[in-house]
Amino acid sequence: MLLRNRPTGRPTADNFEIVSRPMPAVAEDGVLRRTIYLSLDPYMRGRMSDRPSYAAPVALGQPMCGHTVSQVIESRNARFKPGDFVAGYDGWQQYGHSNGVELRVLDPSAAPLSTAIGVLGMPGLTAYVGLLDIGQPKAGETVVVSAASGAVGSVVGQVARIKGCRAVGVAGSPAKCAYVVNELGFDACVNYKDGDFQAALGAACPQGIDVYFENVGGAVFRAVLRLLNANARIPLCGMIADYNAIDATSSPNLRPLLVKRAMIKGFIVLDHEDRAPAFLRDCSAWLRDGQLKYREDIVDGLDAAPAALLKLFDGENFGKLIVRVSADPTRS
Amino acid sequence: MLLRNRPTGRPTADNFEIVSRPMPAVAEDGVLRRTIYLSLDPYMRGRMSDRPSYAAPVALGQPMCGHTVSQVIESRNARFKPGDFVAGYDGWQQYGHSNGVELRVLDPSAAPLSTAIGVLGMPGLTAYVGLLDIGQPKAGETVVVSAASGAVGSVVGQVARIKGCRAVGVAGSPAKCAYVVNELGFDACVNYKDGDFQAALGAACPQGIDVYFENVGGAVFRAVLRLLNANARIPLCGMIADYNAIDATSSPNLRPLLVKRAMIKGFIVLDHEDRAPAFLRDCSAWLRDGQLKYREDIVDGLDAAPAALLKLFDGENFGKLIVRVSADPTRS
Repeated sequence: MLLRNRPTGRPTADNFEIVSRPMPAVAEDGVLRRTIYLSLDPYMRGRMSDRPSYAAPVALGQPMCGHTVSQVIESRNARFKPGDFVAGYDGWQQYGHSNGVELRVLDPSAAPLSTAIGVLGMPGLTAYVGLLDIGQPKAGETVVVSAASGAVGSVVGQVARIKGCRAVGVAGSPAKCAYVVNELGFDACVNYKDGDFQAALGAACPQGIDVYFENVGGAVFRAVLRLLNANARIPLCGMIADYNAIDATSSPNLRPLLVKRAMIKGFIVLDHEDRAPAFLRDCSAWLRDGQLKYREDIVDGLDAAPAALLKLFDGENFGKLIVRVSADPTRS
Repeated sequence: MLLRNRPTGRPTADNFEIVSRPMPAVAEDGVLRRTIYLSLDPYMRGRMSDRPSYAAPVALGQPMCGHTVSQVIESRNARFKPGDFVAGYDGWQQYGHSNGVELRVLDPSAAPLSTAIGVLGMPGLTAYVGLLDIGQPKAGETVVVSAASGAVGSVVGQVARIKGCRAVGVAGSPAKCAYVVNELGFDACVNYKDGDFQAALGAACPQGIDVYFENVGGAVFRAVLRLLNANARIPLCGMIADYNAIDATSSPNLRPLLVKRAMIKGFIVLDHEDRAPAFLRDCSAWLRDGQLKYREDIVDGLDAAPAALLKLFDGENFGKLIVRVSADPTRS
């Protein structure tokens, strides 16, 4: 699936074009794999634009980017043999081919394959680095995370709980809030669409807010600023409320940062690959012993990807949004 | 001078009331001093309000607060003798009396007395801590500071130069800009009232901005955000553009923080008294050897204080704003 043109505001199906190309011949050291899962993530909106950002945009006429889980079907590379499962970055394609340097072999008996693009993948690492390295939560503190039922937010809150913090989620429906509290074990979850969100958030954070994992921007950020404790930390990893805005929206007045000696720090998970070993060790263990749970929102077929991507911006996904490009042979 | 009522928006003379009270009898361990200099600073606007902040407001009917330089006229405290000069916090009063625990004795031969409320006082420490501890400038980086001719900004830029950085000021008149470059030695200074401020700031920062010492808020912050380099740091010590706003204004969209992995951190100089010895050592030395210069804007008489305070918010002061409450015997 190629990026045909750049969206103004919300992406549409018209921004994409499906083409069929001949299967590449496997080069020396090459590895050819079939895509099983494609991850859909908010950052993709940025790659569709050509405004300056931390990564180059997807070129027009090129396949749209994305994290993938694949199975090797042909290999001339000693690191891979047919049948291996790999995590990679093959984008919105049914097949990928490269020398494999960017691929990581997955053990399907250790964790479900799809976790490699979710709780044990980039979203999980984003949560881990942002919460622990930038947010530096201490036991007893209150951690608030927006998009709490999503791929990143769900890990943030659960890790906050594991670290002894009060975890308060913000989500966009009663069903999501119930899931966040009942299934993920957050202490509370507030629906930002409710009438008096500010009061509800205040009630959910009787000791104020020490860490706010900023995932969405907009009105949630405004309400949080009013509840910050002294020396609060705000890891800023996304502002999805704003990604489709044609003109940049304003942010709330930042005076609370001054009064509360608070810190906001933007971060990009790509800068923190050095933390991947610790992340994989910790989160794999928490996953195995049931302390870390996750939910997936799976759509079938690459054709469905453009419409599915919009669900992220409308808050309509419920759990990690994944396209099943082809059948997962490890899952019945 | 008492705080009579709380301002809505801009303070006026009507918010204050001059009263005469009998001279206090000097208590055991007490020290009575005559105010020579009273510092006027932007934070005073916050103390006139009763909205929540990092420090309690001045109570109605009580003397307005402020840093002072005074001369001891009577002492029953072994630490002080008549004639001593002291830095303290006696507020808008002609005389102060206390047990002296908060006073620091000044050596008038080491530096002019008035520097104790300026370049060697709270404004200087604010600049020192914010720039060095939070901004962490590295040689070769570009440091931008707003209110560059003021008490804090002038120190920020000069210390940035001493540390090998490119120092770029922002100020509000051609005369201030000329002073900042020609007298203080900044590499450039841009007038924020000029038509194309954004372009002028960009031209003054050809390598982008690594540290922005945020002193004012408003439009300058917006222009700076567009020029941030990766991993930029923004110590936030004041938002004077907003202090008199009745409704909080909004801030620019914070997406650049994310893209540039930038950090904003609010700080209050009161939290950093532990840095005072290093600050006094360094800045006293730089002052003596001529690397650190300063300018004072002195008004005479406590009666003039209310109107003078407004100069800060209108950008009409040129240099550290000081009220000379009584004659300085060390200065002819």
